[in-house]
Amino acid sequence: MYTVMNMSKTFEKLQVHLDKIMAFETARSLFEWDDQTIAPFEAADYTSKVIGIISDEYMKALINDDVRKLLNKLKEEKEQEQLTDDEKAIVKELDKTYVQLESIPPEEYRAFNELASISNRAWAKAKKDNNYEYFAPYLKEIIEYKKKFAGYRAKKGEEPYEVLLGDFEECFKIKDLDIFFDKIKKEIVPLLKKVSQKSDTIDKSYNYLNYDIDKQRDFCRYLAGYLGFDFNKGVLGESAHPFTLQLHNHDVRITNSFIEDNLESAMFSVIHETGHALYEMNISDSITQTPVGTGASMGMHESQSRLFENIIGRSEAFWTPIYDKLVDTYPDNLKDINLEHFIKGINKAEPSLIRTEADELSYSLHIIIRYEIEKMIFSGEADVDKLPELWNKKYEEYLGLTPPTDSQGILQDTHWSYGEFGYFPSYAIGSAVASQIHAKMMEVMQFEDYLLEGNLTPIREYLKDAIHKYGATKNTNQILKDITGEEFNADYYVNYLKEKYQKLYNLK
Amino acid sequence: MYTVMNMSKTFEKLQVHLDKIMAFETARSLFEWDDQTIAPFEAADYTSKVIGIISDEYMKALINDDVRKLLNKLKEEKEQEQLTDDEKAIVKELDKTYVQLESIPPEEYRAFNELASISNRAWAKAKKDNNYEYFAPYLKEIIEYKKKFAGYRAKKGEEPYEVLLGDFEECFKIKDLDIFFDKIKKEIVPLLKKVSQKSDTIDKSYNYLNYDIDKQRDFCRYLAGYLGFDFNKGVLGESAHPFTLQLHNHDVRITNSFIEDNLESAMFSVIHETGHALYEMNISDSITQTPVGTGASMGMHESQSRLFENIIGRSEAFWTPIYDKLVDTYPDNLKDINLEHFIKGINKAEPSLIRTEADELSYSLHIIIRYEIEKMIFSGEADVDKLPELWNKKYEEYLGLTPPTDSQGILQDTHWSYGEFGYFPSYAIGSAVASQIHAKMMEVMQFEDYLLEGNLTPIREYLKDAIHKYGATKNTNQILKDITGEEFNADYYVNYLKEKYQKLYNLK
Repeated sequence: MYTVMNMSKTFEKLQVHLDKIMAFETARSLFEWDDQTIAPFEAADYTSKVIGIISDEYMKALINDDVRKLLNKLKEEKEQEQLTDDEKAIVKELDKTYVQLESIPPEEYRAFNELASISNRAWAKAKKDNNYEYFAPYLKEIIEYKKKFAGYRAKKGEEPYEVLLGDFEECFKIKDLDIFFDKIKKEIVPLLKKVSQKSDTIDKSYNYLNYDIDKQRDFCRYLAGYLGFDFNKGVLGESAHPFTLQLHNHDVRITNSFIEDNLESAMFSVIHETGHALYEMNISDSITQTPVGTGASMGMHESQSRLFENIIGRSEAFWTPIYDKLVDTYPDNLKDINLEHFIKGINKAEPSLIRTEADELSYSLHIIIRYEIEKMIFSGEADVDKLPELWNKKYEEYLGLTPPTDSQGILQDTHWSYGEFGYFPSYAIGSAVASQIHAKMMEVMQFEDYLLEGNLTPIREYLKDAIHKYGATKNTNQILKDITGEEFNADYYVNYLKEKYQKLYNLK
Repeated sequence: MYTVMNMSKTFEKLQVHLDKIMAFETARSLFEWDDQTIAPFEAADYTSKVIGIISDEYMKALINDDVRKLLNKLKEEKEQEQLTDDEKAIVKELDKTYVQLESIPPEEYRAFNELASISNRAWAKAKKDNNYEYFAPYLKEIIEYKKKFAGYRAKKGEEPYEVLLGDFEECFKIKDLDIFFDKIKKEIVPLLKKVSQKSDTIDKSYNYLNYDIDKQRDFCRYLAGYLGFDFNKGVLGESAHPFTLQLHNHDVRITNSFIEDNLESAMFSVIHETGHALYEMNISDSITQTPVGTGASMGMHESQSRLFENIIGRSEAFWTPIYDKLVDTYPDNLKDINLEHFIKGINKAEPSLIRTEADELSYSLHIIIRYEIEKMIFSGEADVDKLPELWNKKYEEYLGLTPPTDSQGILQDTHWSYGEFGYFPSYAIGSAVASQIHAKMMEVMQFEDYLLEGNLTPIREYLKDAIHKYGATKNTNQILKDITGEEFNADYYVNYLKEKYQKLYNLK
């Protein structure tokens, strides 16, 4: 929803196209939400035809001569002078999309999308059957396409993997990630080893008792509201895997899923998704429903969910005002578990095999393994047929564990099956960015006191003004620079983890 | 979803357009569902912009030179010979839409839609404030537009109201409805008087005790499933007012709404909406997602909901196998209410002021009042400023009651506020058609025995094969003729009501 003010005539013409593009995108989002939450089981075949047509219309509205001409004109200096900063950001974002989409011949793009869909189903079957060999041929084909597509856009001498990384996070090159991840490996691998030797000092058995799901549902809803999720501008639903999706800044939707014998799972999912949702709800009215009306990057988005899930949500200060309410919800299970016990429990760290179930300390090691393998795939150093061995070797090296099956190893994540390479690092970037922002917030406000008072408004307002409202008009480093005075710096993350876990496990 | 088989080349070209038209229509339906069920309160302003764009795209996909040329060509005899029956019906239906939409100059159409939206809000305010005078000027303007629009399409000498009626039900002319309604007035008005004199012979106080809403929700879900609602092809949601909506025959959605101190309300709503839903679920795969992939008419649709709600749902045979389950759900309230008592209670009839709350016996009198007033409005016999007096006079005459306020009188229904004239008769047609079909079913199958056995499958299968699967490829009279050997005949309805209520109130 873009307000007309001294608008450039050319941008005004583009706006009509943008509105149509965003309308189709919003419709697709609603179908996606519906499919994941309530659509009946047998609807998919018929509805997918509708979604296919809407997607075609979206592409036609986006990629056509009229939009291309307007975009090229708006990139000229004379036109740029007449644009507001938001408009410039929209033009830049649209140009990025054009460069991405137009570099690929339409037949190849279509063939790849068909392959991705088939390959994703093959992966699901291979994972179910623990049969990597069945999936490998699809994966090879996917990788060939991604190499070719990256090649179309690569600057002279640029690695294909560099191009793929750039699609998710323009501020991070391979060399930046190498530095970042080396730092983590050096500090966290040994720390995790020490921690796991003291595993039995923390009891977490209470977490796996029976927790009535209706009560979990109510408590999670309470948590979302407590964190500031605005139910007048959002919906809390349920789906197989939790996710966040927005139609615009006045309609942001999150889902949760519940496990009866796991207290933590749904609670930290809803805190995580609320972090994403607050970002989307706080995006400025002037840019919502435009191409920059979403988070700055995947990593930046993840920084907000992880700030809430881990740094806030697993802190003693956060739980101090509300832990009694949780105990009152489940008195039989929790009456003998005091706050200190609970805080230790929710922060217990142990090497594990599955990324999505990993704790805060070991999480980024899972990412590093994927990053290193992806790099090797695209530099030609890794043979796709030998990926399971490579995977298992790295799990042994960084986490001290060997997956007993490929389903719990190389086949665990869906991303590669449809060509999402270069995405995984965003998760680790998110955690590190969260720590860097947190360090600054500790400096400029009584962060812990607010949590202890149960007053999250100042924290939310800070994030809104420093990050959320800008959407994608700034990139990750611009945001960090404006808040903290420096660009991305992984030291905050490493220090945060070291300090937290040394204290938790009495390692000093 | 149209299967390609020996297809005419011209129809094949049309099919591409039809797919696009249906995709936009499906998207609009999903936004409508979402808005009525879960969309957050503040989303409307932003989402309505998206819906507006999708609606524009729908109109552009529907009304354009390409479709017009294909349609005109397909109407030629030579082309018709190459079409299947379904295709002929699609061409006919599309032509009807074209005649309706193309007769109105686009500026007038747009102006009317804007007025309708404003007028609807004015009606809501007038109803809230019990202020008919506030609404009257909007209503006058709406009526002028509807007269003008009907005039564009009226054949020589045809009444404007005749044109409006035809939009909802092509088989019923003013003269048919006059005969139908005169018959009802003659028989039902005196019967209702006798019934209301014996009102105290039936106790219904149990219905207004406290009924836990969670239990109502579970029982209503059970009822929908018992009737044959397929949860793999449908969704049961909640909204302020119950409704049915379909994306296609594999995704049919109904809603319900609950009142804590009214047992009946939600139960009969879900039975009613399930009747609509079964119709949509049973439409043949070959015509779903085409212009004839819905009910034959409003009246025919209503016949299915009312067959289930009233004829089946309020019968002793239906409740015999399941009444114990209801008593077990609410033992405190119902333990002393036996089945006979309950059946009398759910069929108790009394004159009342509000159409939507009327019982089966008095319902059509509410419709007749609206029909007679609509006829007078369009023939110029009724002065819009004097409608409240006219309304109240007729309520006194047919129901023996005078509305104490206009909010409970002339302002009670939303339909006129956005120009829906000619729609009300469909409700009464639906009840009468249901009786005619029911009479035939009693002849050809052990209807009551099936209900007593709790086996609704044969009833559902019959309706599917006789009515549902055809969608709108046949009209109401064609369907009735094919099933019963005669066209619409209101005697079945009058006889059904007389027999039922004379027995219930011991009037013979």
